[in-house]
Amino acid sequence: MASHFSDRLVEGVKKKSTPLIVGLDPVYSRLPQALKNERGDGEIDLAAAVDSIFDFCTRTMKIVAPIVPAVKINIAYFEKYLWEGLEVYYSLLSEAEALGIEVIGDVKRGDIGHTAECYADAHIVNPEFDGMDSVLAPDAITINGFAGADGIIPFADAADEQGKGVFVWVRASNPSAAAIQDFADASGMKMYEKLAAVVGQIAEEPQRLGTAGYSSVGMIVGGTSPEQTAILRKKYPKCWFLVPGFGSQGATAADCVRFCNKDGLGALINASRSIIYAYDDAKYKGQFGDNWEKCIEQAAIDAKIELSKAM
Amino acid sequence: MASHFSDRLVEGVKKKSTPLIVGLDPVYSRLPQALKNERGDGEIDLAAAVDSIFDFCTRTMKIVAPIVPAVKINIAYFEKYLWEGLEVYYSLLSEAEALGIEVIGDVKRGDIGHTAECYADAHIVNPEFDGMDSVLAPDAITINGFAGADGIIPFADAADEQGKGVFVWVRASNPSAAAIQDFADASGMKMYEKLAAVVGQIAEEPQRLGTAGYSSVGMIVGGTSPEQTAILRKKYPKCWFLVPGFGSQGATAADCVRFCNKDGLGALINASRSIIYAYDDAKYKGQFGDNWEKCIEQAAIDAKIELSKAM
Repeated sequence: MASHFSDRLVEGVKKKSTPLIVGLDPVYSRLPQALKNERGDGEIDLAAAVDSIFDFCTRTMKIVAPIVPAVKINIAYFEKYLWEGLEVYYSLLSEAEALGIEVIGDVKRGDIGHTAECYADAHIVNPEFDGMDSVLAPDAITINGFAGADGIIPFADAADEQGKGVFVWVRASNPSAAAIQDFADASGMKMYEKLAAVVGQIAEEPQRLGTAGYSSVGMIVGGTSPEQTAILRKKYPKCWFLVPGFGSQGATAADCVRFCNKDGLGALINASRSIIYAYDDAKYKGQFGDNWEKCIEQAAIDAKIELSKAM
Repeated sequence: MASHFSDRLVEGVKKKSTPLIVGLDPVYSRLPQALKNERGDGEIDLAAAVDSIFDFCTRTMKIVAPIVPAVKINIAYFEKYLWEGLEVYYSLLSEAEALGIEVIGDVKRGDIGHTAECYADAHIVNPEFDGMDSVLAPDAITINGFAGADGIIPFADAADEQGKGVFVWVRASNPSAAAIQDFADASGMKMYEKLAAVVGQIAEEPQRLGTAGYSSVGMIVGGTSPEQTAILRKKYPKCWFLVPGFGSQGATAADCVRFCNKDGLGALINASRSIIYAYDDAKYKGQFGDNWEKCIEQAAIDAKIELSKAM
């Protein structure tokens, strides 16, 4: 497999013929009934909950691994279960590695100096503790670039040393993000465009570029207009864009595929709930009944077709 | 003890007569020799390292608890040690509670929607899992407000329900922060001032105010000029300011105390390395030799005096 994250993405997107990736945001109460360890007394047993979540996520990854190039695992849904949840998160990273798919740790960490280095050690550098050789960090992580280059470079450097990647959160899709991220200077330039310029400069440093010309440093961008998307795509041709919100969060396939280059590369389009909870969707429930795995598989295939048609 | 976080801070700062708080950023290699579990073969044994860190942090908290109103625990230094580090982090929160000092979890989490709620469940809401009743979340956490109000309110609401607090990162002290945070609109207003306005509005909602008039929602501000500090202090009289960087990071006592109101309240001034590694400082080493606890105690007392003089 290619040793540069951006090249592995190129390979993966080509091989699976899709920019679609599947986001794992597992909520215990929404798991298929068959996977729940119910006690019936209303208390939540932490160990039983994380076992169920591990089971659900590994089986979901096995289903989607032949269909998509990557999964995105949202660490918040594991941190909620304290250190036991975190152990399950790391276990899933090893499972993903065994399945041969890229895994993006959606951790949104952001800090500076030695604190940023500690976060990088935790989340992008493969641990090197005695007796824990089998523990892996993700192939890439999401980070928060609020502190500017000082808060991005420690992560990007650590990623490069490991043949991994980072995605900097540049524009969020929630309504209130505009107040901060669309804050504009006298020339009309918006704050997120300024942040994109900082990220773009870091991304274009030669040591970050793979053989296919893409960088190990990408951007998370949702919630821009078609015109703004086109500008970003053109301005940062070497960056992978991680695009959230396809499916349940309301972004259309057409909105999302605008982040792809003409060759279909350069964007990863994430769908989470619309795929992993497809068994709650009447459309799939009617077709496959209690076979929750079939529902997930079909929803992933359908999302892939939808994006393909919009290209 | 007062049930509103901001009132507990008022009590604590008055009782200890200082805005000083101590930051715990424990690095294994810098621990006092007596606390290290050395194996001598160059490998780091994760369990032994986190045991040493737990020992160091509990003993440090015991030393500083009579001197300062709060400690700030930086979770990155624990996440580096994976789930075992996280378990130690939560253990320290219970130790702090037993010592009667406020504890701020420096977690800088930032996300929106259900993800933000998961982070709030992990980091500000006391866990309610069966058999884990003794596990506590911190009295307050730091968060990243990049996504605007949608990324702040879930944390602030969870904090209020628990009588706790949040500090939103408004202005960082690192050089490159200026590119993003000082990005200015046509009127000269800077992005961090816009973010402060968003935070200030959330902070002033009546349900967030304690009996002393302060809010459960504060701001982290470092690296502003004296004039800018004075403007922020005046504009947001109800907010506690968490001020990083006193001591090793270069902010002077005079810079820091400008964030206090005239009654000495309204700011928490954090010193980390200059206190917790005082035993590496020739000044204290000469005085107390290998008694690392005495070095830390004296450094905390000295920092308190320095701030007191600058008031």
